[in-house]
Amino acid sequence: MNEPDFLAALKSLPLHPGARGLLDDCAVLGIGGETLVLTHDMMVEGTHFRPDADMADVAWKLVATNLSDLAAKGAEPVGVLLGHMLGKEDSRFIRGLGEALEAFGTPLLGGDTVGGEGTRSFGLTAIGRALHTPVPSRSGARAGDAIYLTGAVGRAMLGFEGDPRHRAAFDRPVPRLAEGRALAPLVSAMMDVSDGLLLDAYRMAEASGVTIALEPSAIPVADPSRAAEAWRWGDDYELLFTAPPSAGLPVAAHRIGMVAARGPAPLLLGEEALGAPENLGFRHQ
Amino acid sequence: MNEPDFLAALKSLPLHPGARGLLDDCAVLGIGGETLVLTHDMMVEGTHFRPDADMADVAWKLVATNLSDLAAKGAEPVGVLLGHMLGKEDSRFIRGLGEALEAFGTPLLGGDTVGGEGTRSFGLTAIGRALHTPVPSRSGARAGDAIYLTGAVGRAMLGFEGDPRHRAAFDRPVPRLAEGRALAPLVSAMMDVSDGLLLDAYRMAEASGVTIALEPSAIPVADPSRAAEAWRWGDDYELLFTAPPSAGLPVAAHRIGMVAARGPAPLLLGEEALGAPENLGFRHQ
Repeated sequence: MNEPDFLAALKSLPLHPGARGLLDDCAVLGIGGETLVLTHDMMVEGTHFRPDADMADVAWKLVATNLSDLAAKGAEPVGVLLGHMLGKEDSRFIRGLGEALEAFGTPLLGGDTVGGEGTRSFGLTAIGRALHTPVPSRSGARAGDAIYLTGAVGRAMLGFEGDPRHRAAFDRPVPRLAEGRALAPLVSAMMDVSDGLLLDAYRMAEASGVTIALEPSAIPVADPSRAAEAWRWGDDYELLFTAPPSAGLPVAAHRIGMVAARGPAPLLLGEEALGAPENLGFRHQ
Repeated sequence: MNEPDFLAALKSLPLHPGARGLLDDCAVLGIGGETLVLTHDMMVEGTHFRPDADMADVAWKLVATNLSDLAAKGAEPVGVLLGHMLGKEDSRFIRGLGEALEAFGTPLLGGDTVGGEGTRSFGLTAIGRALHTPVPSRSGARAGDAIYLTGAVGRAMLGFEGDPRHRAAFDRPVPRLAEGRALAPLVSAMMDVSDGLLLDAYRMAEASGVTIALEPSAIPVADPSRAAEAWRWGDDYELLFTAPPSAGLPVAAHRIGMVAARGPAPLLLGEEALGAPENLGFRHQ
């Protein structure tokens, strides 16, 4: 099966109401008067990190990408569970893990450590506490909203290519936790940009049943000469959100377009209609 | 690093109080007025399942082993997050996953699906709600308690070897959820037997600071002619627990020994003192 087929099959299984139909990045679980936000991401050698990557960076990124999902929900991290496959540079892994946990004020709750031969993979489950309910989703964008991005895209792309000014953006991304918390009460939809701005905006438009019209010249990119690539590269972990244009924003953000009633295509990039998700970003498999 | 070194390094990181010092199988998280129990286990091809295993069995076992950790806490499953690496027989995986979720009344909360080449691995995070607090731990066994086992060990060993009467015990273990819930209010310590009875009893003795004296003839085994192996094989997922001898047990269980004040060795098997964990069971790496 490819990923879309597998996801479709998962949706036929018994789902928790908090699974949000497996359409969101996180599960949302009401418990004891609180609302928990839960997410799990894996990183596989050769797919999500190069075999020669510094394992400290891999561990950092494993934490950061999961916490970025919590950020998009305006949630405060409670703790993480680690699934670790033993192998080379485990002391570097521990180093980077500890640095990320310290940096984001997130303690370790538990997990599993296993042996194995061959391709290494790691998993992390992050648990957060929602500070605002209802918890933002991808599906709340409404016609008339403006759409915003918290920072430039393309930095991780340049860092991946070796640009020393942007290495940290790729190796050590920083989840927008404070921004997500401040934004949660006023956004109509929010998600983190992990797989590419165009693809993630397309997904938000699909989930919300609207058309999102992006204004190319308004999208902040790290290198304007490579904008078309930057819009499609992922790994920047900025927040993409919609809100009424009249909403006063508590954090710095770039207004990059508008939300309209659903037209023929879910996504417009200037005059160009983008009617299918192919070639919009990074899709695993 | 080997597993003990890695675990020791993890313990130097910021730990959540609910991590119980990484000495237990689950994290225990008070949230609102409820107590959540969280566990994460991985299964790696070649280490935890054979490359020719039926992927439906692998998926079932991934769910069952995690829920067995919840069972040992007397917790009711709330839901699971799945980390899945795509590959062959994914439709069988979905089949077994669905069967396990149905069988144990546990819905899917979310997770991650990734591509990758080479060794496959899967992770599962199970979230449960404690029905009794304090949540049982490994560390509560007290001198004078009796120690019990809910069923025979060695069935999974025979099933792994191909004995048709015991194949299901290896391929499709059933977590003792109902037993765990009934026992939680009266046990002093409880854990599931995943890595071998002797090794897990040794760990309970160490965590509790006591000596556990097992009576070999009282330990139920699937094939008495192979008792010494059965005591060391894992994967049976029975519950091992201690309670005052006067406690009336709400479930069927075999009394297999006594707890005494810490003597020279943490574990006694009849007259034999077992002072180190080597050769007591299955240790990954």
